[in-house]
Amino acid sequence: MEGALLHPDRLLPADPATRQLARGLYQSVEALPIVSPHGHTDPKWWGENPAFTDPAALFVTPDHYVTRMLTSQGVSFEALGIGENCERDSRRIWQTFADHYYLFAGTPSRIWVDDALARLFGFSKRLGPDTANEIYDAIAELLPKPETSPRALYDRFGIEVIATTDSALDDLSYHAMARDSDWNGRVVPTYRPDSVIDPDVRDFAENLERLAEVSGCDTNTYDGYLDAHRARRAAFKAMGATATDHGHPTPQTTDLPYAEACALYERVRSGNPNAGDAELFRAQMLTEMARMSLDDGLVMQLHSGSLRGHSAKVQRDYGPDRGFDIPVPVSFTEALRPLLNAVGMDPRLTLILFTLDETTYARELAPLAGVWPCLRLGPPWWFHDSYEGMRRFREMAMETAGIYNTVGFNDDTRALCSIPARHDVARRVDSGWLAEMVVTHRIDECEAYDIARLLAHDLAMKAYRL
Amino acid sequence: MEGALLHPDRLLPADPATRQLARGLYQSVEALPIVSPHGHTDPKWWGENPAFTDPAALFVTPDHYVTRMLTSQGVSFEALGIGENCERDSRRIWQTFADHYYLFAGTPSRIWVDDALARLFGFSKRLGPDTANEIYDAIAELLPKPETSPRALYDRFGIEVIATTDSALDDLSYHAMARDSDWNGRVVPTYRPDSVIDPDVRDFAENLERLAEVSGCDTNTYDGYLDAHRARRAAFKAMGATATDHGHPTPQTTDLPYAEACALYERVRSGNPNAGDAELFRAQMLTEMARMSLDDGLVMQLHSGSLRGHSAKVQRDYGPDRGFDIPVPVSFTEALRPLLNAVGMDPRLTLILFTLDETTYARELAPLAGVWPCLRLGPPWWFHDSYEGMRRFREMAMETAGIYNTVGFNDDTRALCSIPARHDVARRVDSGWLAEMVVTHRIDECEAYDIARLLAHDLAMKAYRL
Amino acid sequence: MEGALLHPDRLLPADPATRQLARGLYQSVEALPIVSPHGHTDPKWWGENPAFTDPAALFVTPDHYVTRMLTSQGVSFEALGIGENCERDSRRIWQTFADHYYLFAGTPSRIWVDDALARLFGFSKRLGPDTANEIYDAIAELLPKPETSPRALYDRFGIEVIATTDSALDDLSYHAMARDSDWNGRVVPTYRPDSVIDPDVRDFAENLERLAEVSGCDTNTYDGYLDAHRARRAAFKAMGATATDHGHPTPQTTDLPYAEACALYERVRSGNPNAGDAELFRAQMLTEMARMSLDDGLVMQLHSGSLRGHSAKVQRDYGPDRGFDIPVPVSFTEALRPLLNAVGMDPRLTLILFTLDETTYARELAPLAGVWPCLRLGPPWWFHDSYEGMRRFREMAMETAGIYNTVGFNDDTRALCSIPARHDVARRVDSGWLAEMVVTHRIDECEAYDIARLLAHDLAMKAYRL
Repeated sequence: MEGALLHPDRLLPADPATRQLARGLYQSVEALPIVSPHGHTDPKWWGENPAFTDPAALFVTPDHYVTRMLTSQGVSFEALGIGENCERDSRRIWQTFADHYYLFAGTPSRIWVDDALARLFGFSKRLGPDTANEIYDAIAELLPKPETSPRALYDRFGIEVIATTDSALDDLSYHAMARDSDWNGRVVPTYRPDSVIDPDVRDFAENLERLAEVSGCDTNTYDGYLDAHRARRAAFKAMGATATDHGHPTPQTTDLPYAEACALYERVRSGNPNAGDAELFRAQMLTEMARMSLDDGLVMQLHSGSLRGHSAKVQRDYGPDRGFDIPVPVSFTEALRPLLNAVGMDPRLTLILFTLDETTYARELAPLAGVWPCLRLGPPWWFHDSYEGMRRFREMAMETAGIYNTVGFNDDTRALCSIPARHDVARRVDSGWLAEMVVTHRIDECEAYDIARLLAHDLAMKAYRL
Repeated sequence: MEGALLHPDRLLPADPATRQLARGLYQSVEALPIVSPHGHTDPKWWGENPAFTDPAALFVTPDHYVTRMLTSQGVSFEALGIGENCERDSRRIWQTFADHYYLFAGTPSRIWVDDALARLFGFSKRLGPDTANEIYDAIAELLPKPETSPRALYDRFGIEVIATTDSALDDLSYHAMARDSDWNGRVVPTYRPDSVIDPDVRDFAENLERLAEVSGCDTNTYDGYLDAHRARRAAFKAMGATATDHGHPTPQTTDLPYAEACALYERVRSGNPNAGDAELFRAQMLTEMARMSLDDGLVMQLHSGSLRGHSAKVQRDYGPDRGFDIPVPVSFTEALRPLLNAVGMDPRLTLILFTLDETTYARELAPLAGVWPCLRLGPPWWFHDSYEGMRRFREMAMETAGIYNTVGFNDDTRALCSIPARHDVARRVDSGWLAEMVVTHRIDECEAYDIARLLAHDLAMKAYRL
Repeated sequence: MEGALLHPDRLLPADPATRQLARGLYQSVEALPIVSPHGHTDPKWWGENPAFTDPAALFVTPDHYVTRMLTSQGVSFEALGIGENCERDSRRIWQTFADHYYLFAGTPSRIWVDDALARLFGFSKRLGPDTANEIYDAIAELLPKPETSPRALYDRFGIEVIATTDSALDDLSYHAMARDSDWNGRVVPTYRPDSVIDPDVRDFAENLERLAEVSGCDTNTYDGYLDAHRARRAAFKAMGATATDHGHPTPQTTDLPYAEACALYERVRSGNPNAGDAELFRAQMLTEMARMSLDDGLVMQLHSGSLRGHSAKVQRDYGPDRGFDIPVPVSFTEALRPLLNAVGMDPRLTLILFTLDETTYARELAPLAGVWPCLRLGPPWWFHDSYEGMRRFREMAMETAGIYNTVGFNDDTRALCSIPARHDVARRVDSGWLAEMVVTHRIDECEAYDIARLLAHDLAMKAYRL
């Protein structure tokens, strides 16, 4: 049930003939299973299947898209249930969200929340000051019920497979619980080793010690450290992982001679780095990770270009992921060259690139992915995972990269209820884009149907080796 | 009267249903009062209300958009009445303009001039070689009349308030004359201290001396210098100012310890700067200006990213503002961090950002304004104050920044007759954009009407504290 | 005959009224002669008029757009007939191309190949695994016939003039053969001196010696070296050249004092450069080339921003121009300033700028070309020579640069059969853009017809002084 909140033609092109075509394309992919190969859902949901506690905890407090917009208009973190001495009353947090919901006009968050309220909870009125209580009550009543548990939502959403993103130090116990349960959902971990690769991370030295413990390898030497990664990757793979993910400030790579790499590791391990060593070590490790992928077949993802914790005060008082991560300019051409020259022609490697700097779409990423056999382009990421952002990606990257060098959609979310909405937005935008291609006779109509299915489902399965 | 020059549906979307909606939205804001919180009209116009002298002086000579296009096609500055030994015959300058008016096809200047000729002077024929004389005569006849005086135009244009941009050294006497007259127009100054903040400005040392004189503060010390700013800001505020404006080559900020800031000031004041000191001092002063804004409530504007005087010869022989200011790449994320970490969470601060590098819209400015409570996004500036430029701004910035973190429109002009045309273009483009949002069901129709009014009027009043 | 492969309305806008207008505009320019002032056709074709050997050699092996896409999906260079021990059977190469032709959906290559197969060879079925043989046979049968020879194609395509791009060391003998033949085609060379200007080029020292030989000037001194350029430019001009072309990594220019320039030349000539000398010498030579253009009237073209040979292995094993040239960020504002301040106001100079970094369109190139009398904007280049790329160029550059500061279209191709397709795409996209300008009342309909003709034909003739 969609109700008045969601128009059946939403996000489809304005021109009537193009809309008609887009509608047909969308209908052909609307109900395909959801493939979610990259995201941040909590493994505990899948392992323990706990009920969600309250509407604010589900929709407001953990969603940095929501909290950042409210922050920008002067709402305090405390009023959103964040920080010491914060508001604890979920209903009051919810009312604050509702009072400011008008701020989201024209943003992706509004689409995602409207969609969840309409399709998941059956509302036909928009959230606002006057509807806040009514909606709160209805959601609060549903949350304890079995059909609103994480696993039930997975099934209701039609998810075929979902990947979480997990620290290299994680014991994957929740994944084991999900696997060993009688539930049939497919949940796989993703190897994200930033905390043991980035010397700028707090507790880096301690993390290396923990890595030694969980891997059983001696991380006091570079060889042992690399073995530890191999061991952890194998453990992730055994639990179903098909991919790694690397969140780096820049896409810089390098390929140092062995002795230099050993010496570099010793400096960063012992806490005596030279200037530039942290960046150099991250760069070296991207190439090492790519080499390991040749052996174990894990697909590699690179997310770069975000300056984390732009506000030192917010970082200190309210923690990370509060909306204060801001993109910076990046360039891939020179940065990726060492890694690519080392292993880029090897057919065993898949490296999926993501960017927050859209200037790289047409200038660098499409030309790179359009020639290097290992490279694929990830979908629009973070702030660009939106109607306009997705259109820009298609318009700027596809002519040079080619559709087959992309990997479908990632919802990339920690907000469970937004998953179907996000995939739905992507399917609608892509259907509209394909319809425009047909109307302007750049592709045939029957091709468009094939490609719609690729974008909505098949390319993700293939690229992530799921 | 618009005549054949201006189509009533100009700049509205092509799709018939979308155009119908856009027309309704436009009609709802078409006649709203003009709020002009940032621009470069001559305060003398408002203080003395002098008649304009001739058509060329009104439309050609001072308009760098006009002169730059003619220069690009080989017309000399002299032929446009600029420089030593230049053409003095206004009619001949006008004829040169008319002969080359075809060059402006598809440019904002053509829209602005057509609009002024049609709506202000009642012409229904376009300017060209054959109509030049007829149009010249008609304008020349009207200029001496009272209804064509600056204050009469202010009233005819439906201006509610207009801000000028004024040197920190200005005595604001024209503003006083306007205020003390029996005219009811609201003209406010804006504090623009570049000439006493930028050590690279010619006569910087002399300007500091003049600052001491006009402020009564000793500018030989950093404390006295800061006090001089406080005094001048207070004087501007007393004359109605609600904002400051800062035109810097880059958006770099810093927040030096007091002793370092004093030493830096001493070096730039005494003409003995180290390499990088000029940039560092400008950076430091942006943070100091922000701190003063906490106290006096003046809204802060930052315009950066233009390399002024790209041609040394033109700068020398024909002066500044001749069209030879060319944008350079900028990045805000790192640059603004010191200022923002110093005062960015303080609810008393409003800092409005402008860019000439559109790559920063989606990558940096929208993410920044979408979270920092002090930040607001200024409208498309300078070369981007155009049909396509405004559309790009909406499409690239709104999904992440949110509409409420913008400040409506600035005409930013020194060409009085272009003011209604510029606001009209903005209202049309925004109506078209909103109509497309409605047709694709991203916002509701009633919301679009509310937002249209915000964009055309209310957001500017609120953001600039008018 | 276009057949089912090409829709008559392809690439025209979706909105029916706009399409109707666009169709009229397109029909008015569809049959205009082709002006091709910049490209890479083989002079031998024009001088000797040899028959093309086989379909793969015509469409696959030399086309880096084609090979790069196949490489990106794991097809080996060998399978495409490139490299030692490569496939020699043209039919099998063709089959590989056909088997992977689906990869080109939505790319410019698909449009170009479809167009050539339909309009030149009369096919109505698309290339694919099942049609490969049939199409191969038909083309192979046609290639030996006189009407498929290069000169016959020139005539059939309606080319008015075509420029090749030629090394400064080339003896232009093929141009002489074409000139001296009884064929009436107009083929002119373009002076491309990169191999004797760029110290990073392999065999630079040897090239300088050859330059001395072919010019009769002593290249052991800077003066002699500059004279050698003058002599070669004169020889090119005598053979019909109207332009030079410079392919530089960056657009950096400089204007060194004479003694410094001499010393710099001595260092690069003798193979003892300091760090940065190669870039500095290229920068100096751009200004020297501009100065020579003042004297001899050759129009100057600057193509910059490509990092050549991104894969060292591909460069080594398969040579240059294999699709591994990747753009990097560039900025023109500071880089061009020395050259422009030296000669930029001289009415004798025309300097046409090309970019692979689209961020420079609105930020730098349009503002620069919209004021400097010597500057003109080249059309979208390389990866941007596409439906979306051309639209972005129009939308981002025209409002500030002005239509008259552009130079029409370049096909820039080494693929002879793609020439009419490429010009046709440009004419369609421009017709659509102009129609949208008319429908939104930014230009008048009659103006649009005039401008369509300028863009399709006249501006190129004028800018290149043809």
